[in-house]
Amino acid sequence: MAGRASISPERLWSRLMELGRDGALPGKGVNRQALSAEDILAWRRIIAWGSEAGLKPATDAAGNLFLTLDGKFPHLSPVVAGSHVDSQPTGGLFDGAFGTLAALEAVTAIAEAGLAPERPVTVVAWMNEEGSRFAPGMMGSELFAGKRTMAEVMAVRDAAGVSVAEALKAVHEAFPELERRPLGFPVHGYIEPHIEQADVLERAGAVIGVVSGIQGKKTYEITITGREAHAGTEPMERRQDALQAFARMALHMQQDMAVDDVVKFTIGRLEVEPNAPSVVPARVVFRIDLRHPENGMLDRLGLRIEQIVAEEASPCDFQVRRLVDAPSNGFDEGLQSAIRSSAAEHGYKTLDLLSAAGHDARQMAPLAPSAMIFIPCRGGISHHPDEWAEPAHVAAGATVLLDLLLEQAGLSPKQGDA
Amino acid sequence: MAGRASISPERLWSRLMELGRDGALPGKGVNRQALSAEDILAWRRIIAWGSEAGLKPATDAAGNLFLTLDGKFPHLSPVVAGSHVDSQPTGGLFDGAFGTLAALEAVTAIAEAGLAPERPVTVVAWMNEEGSRFAPGMMGSELFAGKRTMAEVMAVRDAAGVSVAEALKAVHEAFPELERRPLGFPVHGYIEPHIEQADVLERAGAVIGVVSGIQGKKTYEITITGREAHAGTEPMERRQDALQAFARMALHMQQDMAVDDVVKFTIGRLEVEPNAPSVVPARVVFRIDLRHPENGMLDRLGLRIEQIVAEEASPCDFQVRRLVDAPSNGFDEGLQSAIRSSAAEHGYKTLDLLSAAGHDARQMAPLAPSAMIFIPCRGGISHHPDEWAEPAHVAAGATVLLDLLLEQAGLSPKQGDA
Repeated sequence: MAGRASISPERLWSRLMELGRDGALPGKGVNRQALSAEDILAWRRIIAWGSEAGLKPATDAAGNLFLTLDGKFPHLSPVVAGSHVDSQPTGGLFDGAFGTLAALEAVTAIAEAGLAPERPVTVVAWMNEEGSRFAPGMMGSELFAGKRTMAEVMAVRDAAGVSVAEALKAVHEAFPELERRPLGFPVHGYIEPHIEQADVLERAGAVIGVVSGIQGKKTYEITITGREAHAGTEPMERRQDALQAFARMALHMQQDMAVDDVVKFTIGRLEVEPNAPSVVPARVVFRIDLRHPENGMLDRLGLRIEQIVAEEASPCDFQVRRLVDAPSNGFDEGLQSAIRSSAAEHGYKTLDLLSAAGHDARQMAPLAPSAMIFIPCRGGISHHPDEWAEPAHVAAGATVLLDLLLEQAGLSPKQGDA
Repeated sequence: MAGRASISPERLWSRLMELGRDGALPGKGVNRQALSAEDILAWRRIIAWGSEAGLKPATDAAGNLFLTLDGKFPHLSPVVAGSHVDSQPTGGLFDGAFGTLAALEAVTAIAEAGLAPERPVTVVAWMNEEGSRFAPGMMGSELFAGKRTMAEVMAVRDAAGVSVAEALKAVHEAFPELERRPLGFPVHGYIEPHIEQADVLERAGAVIGVVSGIQGKKTYEITITGREAHAGTEPMERRQDALQAFARMALHMQQDMAVDDVVKFTIGRLEVEPNAPSVVPARVVFRIDLRHPENGMLDRLGLRIEQIVAEEASPCDFQVRRLVDAPSNGFDEGLQSAIRSSAAEHGYKTLDLLSAAGHDARQMAPLAPSAMIFIPCRGGISHHPDEWAEPAHVAAGATVLLDLLLEQAGLSPKQGDA
C-alpha cells in the first residue's frame, strides 16, 4: 500500500508562510515565545489543519501538543514526528516550524491516501525548545523524557516574572476541549526534520542531511558582584566594577575557547545592575553557551570556563550556576540507513553530518530509536529573520519523512510492524 | 541684624530622613527618579515645609521647583541656593536632598528670625540632575541656563518610552495651584551645598569643602552592530559578535584611560540585543562617562575613546554619539573666601578641593557668582543606599550656607547689597 501517499509541496509551503503570521516581526521573521499569545495562535492554526485531516489533538501536563492519526492497533505505541513552534525573539520562519509542519504534511498525506497504519502516527510540537523566554529550553521534551521534574520546570520565571506554570495554565485554558495525555507515554520511534542552521549541506550541494548525532552542550549563568559607586568621584583603583570584570572574563574565555574549529562559545545574554550611566556597575549576570562534539573536550572547556571566572573576578565576587550539561549523543543506525535509502530513491543527494545545534531529538534518543532529517538553510543563517529554506528542500525533507513514517507505522512491505 | 538667625539641626536632620520615605528602597536608600510619582511626593513635602515658613512655591517650564522668601526690594534679582531631589535608581538619602533641604533650612531660619532681606532668597530643586531615568542629566539647570533647547529636552524618552514632556505634564498637573515663573530669570548669586561623594574631606578630617571648581566630563553612547546567529552552529571565525567587540573595547579603554590617578572612566549602562542565551549578540549599546579636571587631557582621552571604538569594532560596525561635553569650570573667588571666613568663625576645618562629580552649579557659574559647599560623606560612598553624612556635618554645611545667604541677601553689615 505504501507509495500511494504523497505530500503536497504547495500546501506545506503555504502553511509554513501562514504560521509565520503568528508573532510576525515588522518586515520579516517571527517572535513566537513559548506559551505566549502568539504560541496559542499557532496552536489554533495547527489543530485546525490537523482536524481537517482527521487527526486528534491532545496535550499533556508539560504543554506539548500532539496530533494523532489512529492506527489499526491503538494499543501499539505511536510513531512520533515533529519539532517545536516557539521561536527566538528575532527568529525565522523555519526553525521548528519546518519540522512540525513537515510531520503534519506527511501524516496528512497518509490520511488522505486512505491508508490505515498499524500503529498510531503522532505529530508533536514540543513546549519551549528555544529557552529564550523561559530558560533553559527543551522543557517539553525533557519533561516528557523525565529528565527534569515538573516542580523545577513550572517554577521557572520569564523576565517579567511570569512562571511557566502560569503561562501554561493560560495556554491550556485557551483549549479547554483538548484531550489530556499522560506525560511520557511509550514511543515506537521518533523522527525530527529540521533546517541545518549551518551551511555544511549548502556548501556540499546536498539536499538531505543524515544526522549522526548532536554535539554536546553546557550552559552556565555567571553572576559577578561588585560595588556601586559614583562614576565621577570613586577613584579607579578602589572600584569593584562588575562590568569591567565581565569584559576581562569574556575576552579571556574567547581566547581560551579557541581550541579548534568545531568549538562554539557564546555569551548571548547579559544584564547589568543598576545599569545607570553614572554609576559603577554593581552586578552583572550573564549566560554562557558552550558546545563541542567530543565529550572529553567539552568537559575540559567547561572546567576552564569556571577557572577563568575565578581568575578574572577580583576584586568582585562571583557565582557560577551550571544550567545545561548535555553530552553528545548518537542517533539510530537503522533510521539513518532508511533516510539514505529514501533519499536515494528520490534522487536527493545526502550528507552524513553531526548537529551542532541542540534539538528535542536529543531527549527522545534514549527512549526510542530516533533520527533527524536535515535540509539546507540559506547561508547557514538561523535564529534571525533572514533564515530561509528553499521550497524544493522543504518538500524533499517532508518526502523522506513520509517514507520513514510509512515504514515505521507498518505500511511498507519492507519493515511492516518491525 | 545678621547673626540672630540660626538653623535648627534637629529639624533639618529629621526632614532629610522624612524625605527619604519618598521612593524608599526596601532596607535603606531611595529610588526617586526625576518627574516620577515619588518625585511628586517629595515636591509635596517640600512645598508644605516651605509654606510653613512663608515661602512662596513656584515652578517653570523646565520643571524646576522654587520656594522664595520675599525681599524688601522685589525687583532685585534673588539669591538662589539648593540642589536637586531626584536620585539614582539605588541612591542614598543625601545626594541632592542635603543641598535642597539645607537651603530650605537656612531660608526658614532667616524667615523665623523676622529678618527682612533686601533681595529675595530662593530655594531651588533642579529638575533631573541625575539623568538616570532621562539621559543626560542636569536638564533643569541646563534649560534654565539656556544650554539646551526645550524641544530637545522634552523629546527625551525613558526606557518605558515616556517622554520628558509627558512626565513633566503629570508633575505640573499634580500642582495646579503653583505659580509659573519665566524660564531663566536673572540670579544675583548661586550657592549649592552637597555631600562630597568622595572621601577627601573625611581623610583630611575637614568638615567644610571649599569647592574651587568642577572637573570636566564627557559622555558617549556607543552602538556596536554585529549579526545575529545561532550559538550552536555559527562557526566562530564567521561571527560578528557585538558583545565580544564590546569586551575588547571595554578592556582596551580601561587600560588606555589609566593615565593618572584623577581620571575617572566608567561604563555604567549597557544593553544587548536580542539578549537571548543561544543567539550571538547582534547589537550592543553602551554609555561611557569620562571625567578629568584638565581640559586638555579630557579632550585627548575623549579622542582616544573614539579611536579605540574604531580599532576594536571589526568585524562589527559602530556608531559614536557624543552626549555631554562639559569642560572644567571654576567657582567665584569671593564666595570661596566667604565660605572660608564663615567656617573659621564657627570653628569648622576647611579644605579647598575640586569637585569630581558634576553638579547643577556648573550651569549657574556662567550666569552669576556661584559656589559649592561640600560636607564629608562616609567612606566616600555615594549613589548607593549606604550613602551617609554625619548630623554634625549636615548642620555645619547649613550653618555656613546661612551666613552666605545673609551676606548675599543684604543682611550682613560686611557685604550688604554688594
